Amino acid sequence: MFPGVSRRGMLFGGAALGASLLSSGQAAAQAPPGAIEYPVQPDSTKEQGRVILDDGGYGSRSQFENELRWRYPTDSLDSSWSLTPLAAGMGIITPSGLHFERHHGGIPTIDPEKHSLIVHGMVDKPLRFTMNDLKRLPSVSRTMFIECSGNGLSEWDKPTLKTVQGTHGLTSTSEWTGVLLSTVLKEAGIQDGAAWILAEGADAAVMTRSVPIDKAMDDAILAYGQNGEALRPEQGYPLRLLLPGYEGNTHIKWLRRLEISDKPFMTREETLKYTDLMPDGKAREFTLEMDAKSVITFPSGAMRLPTPGFYEISGIAWSGRGKITGVEISADGGKTWNKATLQEPVLDKCHTRFRMPWIWDGREAVLQSRCTDETGYVQPTLAELVKARGVYSVYHLNAIQSWHIAANGEVSNVHV
Amino acid sequence: MFPGVSRRGMLFGGAALGASLLSSGQAAAQAPPGAIEYPVQPDSTKEQGRVILDDGGYGSRSQFENELRWRYPTDSLDSSWSLTPLAAGMGIITPSGLHFERHHGGIPTIDPEKHSLIVHGMVDKPLRFTMNDLKRLPSVSRTMFIECSGNGLSEWDKPTLKTVQGTHGLTSTSEWTGVLLSTVLKEAGIQDGAAWILAEGADAAVMTRSVPIDKAMDDAILAYGQNGEALRPEQGYPLRLLLPGYEGNTHIKWLRRLEISDKPFMTREETLKYTDLMPDGKAREFTLEMDAKSVITFPSGAMRLPTPGFYEISGIAWSGRGKITGVEISADGGKTWNKATLQEPVLDKCHTRFRMPWIWDGREAVLQSRCTDETGYVQPTLAELVKARGVYSVYHLNAIQSWHIAANGEVSNVHV
Repeated sequence: MFPGVSRRGMLFGGAALGASLLSSGQAAAQAPPGAIEYPVQPDSTKEQGRVILDDGGYGSRSQFENELRWRYPTDSLDSSWSLTPLAAGMGIITPSGLHFERHHGGIPTIDPEKHSLIVHGMVDKPLRFTMNDLKRLPSVSRTMFIECSGNGLSEWDKPTLKTVQGTHGLTSTSEWTGVLLSTVLKEAGIQDGAAWILAEGADAAVMTRSVPIDKAMDDAILAYGQNGEALRPEQGYPLRLLLPGYEGNTHIKWLRRLEISDKPFMTREETLKYTDLMPDGKAREFTLEMDAKSVITFPSGAMRLPTPGFYEISGIAWSGRGKITGVEISADGGKTWNKATLQEPVLDKCHTRFRMPWIWDGREAVLQSRCTDETGYVQPTLAELVKARGVYSVYHLNAIQSWHIAANGEVSNVHV
Repeated sequence: MFPGVSRRGMLFGGAALGASLLSSGQAAAQAPPGAIEYPVQPDSTKEQGRVILDDGGYGSRSQFENELRWRYPTDSLDSSWSLTPLAAGMGIITPSGLHFERHHGGIPTIDPEKHSLIVHGMVDKPLRFTMNDLKRLPSVSRTMFIECSGNGLSEWDKPTLKTVQGTHGLTSTSEWTGVLLSTVLKEAGIQDGAAWILAEGADAAVMTRSVPIDKAMDDAILAYGQNGEALRPEQGYPLRLLLPGYEGNTHIKWLRRLEISDKPFMTREETLKYTDLMPDGKAREFTLEMDAKSVITFPSGAMRLPTPGFYEISGIAWSGRGKITGVEISADGGKTWNKATLQEPVLDKCHTRFRMPWIWDGREAVLQSRCTDETGYVQPTLAELVKARGVYSVYHLNAIQSWHIAANGEVSNVHV
């Protein structure tokens, strides 16, 4: 039952107030490794609290907050990833300390004073920019998601991961700041016939991807800022290419070189990896734009609803092709759908928080969310997606996620 | 000179590219206390970088980034404050670790499992909410500023502080998440005649302020989230009252009690403090809404422009009464003004980033910004403000800030 929320006193009945909500994954508050533990004050009004640090300090989170990224168990750590704890997320911003990671050769340690970006190839003037040069140029800020195209990769065939962190945690949102790539390219002077740009990272993988010149001249950003401060090391410090709406691996981190050409470079990452094998044996390549996708983050896998009664269903939706225009929620496995509320402002190519009140009657249920973006594209069911793409694809799984609610309140990942 | 930025090759001449920009306050990169220092890789493409932590971890910033809050030198630490390094800011989000602090009795350490909020007084049903109860209610997120009404307090008479961190650093912006206070008040049932609410903190100061009931029922939020995770301890963990646009001290931290009444409570903070003494000996009280204000953060005090040439002037503007509708910039001490670009989306009662290209001709200049909000209110000059309020006011200094650029590029705080 999806109740209205505005009528006085109608919302919670009586049972819900006073009830506690437990997540089995986070049962006991336990300080994370390295956190400073302060003695809890039995009556904090009766004794002076901690004072401000001498140097003003750089704050850290409470000792009672213990969400961490989760490292996926890859065979080797040479190339690995960690996932954002989406179940603990609120609003649309991902804390920089919890932004997902995907490294192909580890996190390099780069001195920004020695780092530079070279722009060459089919340009009138090859240029080299130090970080100081780039920071002196006109800047822009943009709040947007980055999603790894491998997000959900283990879920094509059958449900394997228990939590939303596992199934969907390779997507995060930040407010990014930097220089429009077009500003730099106009300065270098793009020659006639230029059609692609190679972006190259300074990591041990020398990560490289080809980017269409139209995208580069449209909304691509050379980013040095994330959530109001410098990029985090795991996100490419000191410089990262941002391609709003494109798959995460194209947002080249530790960016050091841009080469302009008339054709794509067919790098290792666009031949061996990051293509999508179809049932007919052909592979889709340069599937750069992320399709519209949504997931319910509360309630989600491995939680337990303690009692029947009122809950707010909440989650995130996003599209690499524009704004989210609607999210619908089903509590009966897709038979009937109700419109969720979208958190304003809804931003282009950005996580959009959705919310909907729900009264759980204590019986089995299957919760799903389905989003639509401004191109009119509707998030498909897994059956529809598999029908179109087969199950050899590793990347670009954007199907509707189903969470089963058992009669005892346990929430689990299912395919329906 | 304010140039256009869109013409190819016209932007930088030649001199600016390759030039380095120095801030005298932050000359050398030096790892802040406690930062883990990793060896810099001379060629980071030739050796594997750091791997992801076993537990996935909670990331920290680069060892080369050293901005800190600055503790104002108060006589005692019982009641003190630290300021956000606005000169290093980008976009509109303040990193949670750099959000300004203002404590009247230090930072209490509160176990969220033991914390609760009491709602009583002129209500039908007195209620107690645990943190779990509150998190189960319908939630909202809102990106907004909080500004201490004492921001700039030393600057009424003459310029005293050298940097924008000192003059304006008691304002910060976060994406906050929590429950609308109206949701809780509707549940308790407000009685006829109720006009004010007392909000009380669980800190050693037992900080208390009275809030008009109309504000409480409009957009006030019981916040438990900040920038996608739990509130930081310095910001009231586990619960803070948010009053969008109101002076910072009313956003009661470590919130534990709300009492509904028919009149204001005339607490210590609204008699001894947080009133504005006028030239005629009378005091303005309950000056709750923050007036529109703006400041240029680049270039700003204690920086040095290394050479004449192209710069992007950048700063923030905000109003407690709605959206910022325009920011103008003067380079001649207020004789002529030019319109700055506002970063989209412009949000209600939120920092708004503004930017404008500028070519410095190498001669003395005075840079100023002046904002207008959607009520039509225009940020006043200091002379206009002093004429209206005198110089006995400590709070609510929102005058236009002037930065003097010397012929050698040094930037300093001046009154013109």
